[in-house]
Amino acid sequence: MLADDHLGRARERLEQPLPDCYFAAFDKVERDGNLTLVVAEDKAGRVVGCLQLCILPGLSSQGASRGLIEDVRVASNRRSRGIGEQLVQWAVGEARARDCKLVELLTHHTRVDAQRFYERLGFAKSHVGMTIRF
Amino acid sequence: MLADDHLGRARERLEQPLPDCYFAAFDKVERDGNLTLVVAEDKAGRVVGCLQLCILPGLSSQGASRGLIEDVRVASNRRSRGIGEQLVQWAVGEARARDCKLVELLTHHTRVDAQRFYERLGFAKSHVGMTIRF
Repeated sequence: MLADDHLGRARERLEQPLPDCYFAAFDKVERDGNLTLVVAEDKAGRVVGCLQLCILPGLSSQGASRGLIEDVRVASNRRSRGIGEQLVQWAVGEARARDCKLVELLTHHTRVDAQRFYERLGFAKSHVGMTIRF
Repeated sequence: MLADDHLGRARERLEQPLPDCYFAAFDKVERDGNLTLVVAEDKAGRVVGCLQLCILPGLSSQGASRGLIEDVRVASNRRSRGIGEQLVQWAVGEARARDCKLVELLTHHTRVDAQRFYERLGFAKSHVGMTIRF
């Protein structure tokens, strides 16, 4: 799903067997108690969506943690059925349950549909997301 | 410094003694090897700037970690002297040294000077930063 996307296509290596770099990254995510990789499965157990939630302690806002949602993806043949909504709502609820006062995410400026989707779920376009890619 | 800011003023509690919530948050940051709170000091040892760097493992971009820079602040009477630039350049270099392929940050849409500052340091306004605050 990460590769099945107009931005991801050029960035991922979808090969069999999957390159070791993905397994190494999975181990790092799994070892970190502040990182949660969540998948949505259909009734047959096929993964149809995913996201990563990061819980980030910090000093600002009276020492509140914040939640960061990254890498939200839904299988291209399963979109517009509420899967992304369920995943994001879960992440927002989990962040809240873990005492975050803020949940944030960056979405590429070309993903206009995604921005509308997040606004529908209560997010505001309050910030500019800035990046350097090496 | 977190309180000395048009957005921070309403969000922080600058009291003596400092509320326990800040100490508790500091402990959480200190315990997490992926989080680094950096301060800049002047020659007299006074803290004149700070930022928090988060190193976030993840699956996308071939399992590359990404760096997230948060809470960049420079003391109001020490601005425009390159302190913020030194802090951010340090964070970008550290993220790169820790194998990140991307460094990202959110800056409030009203912080137009900050956006120009980050563009000067090589960041692009590539994303929309979206938030929910509880």
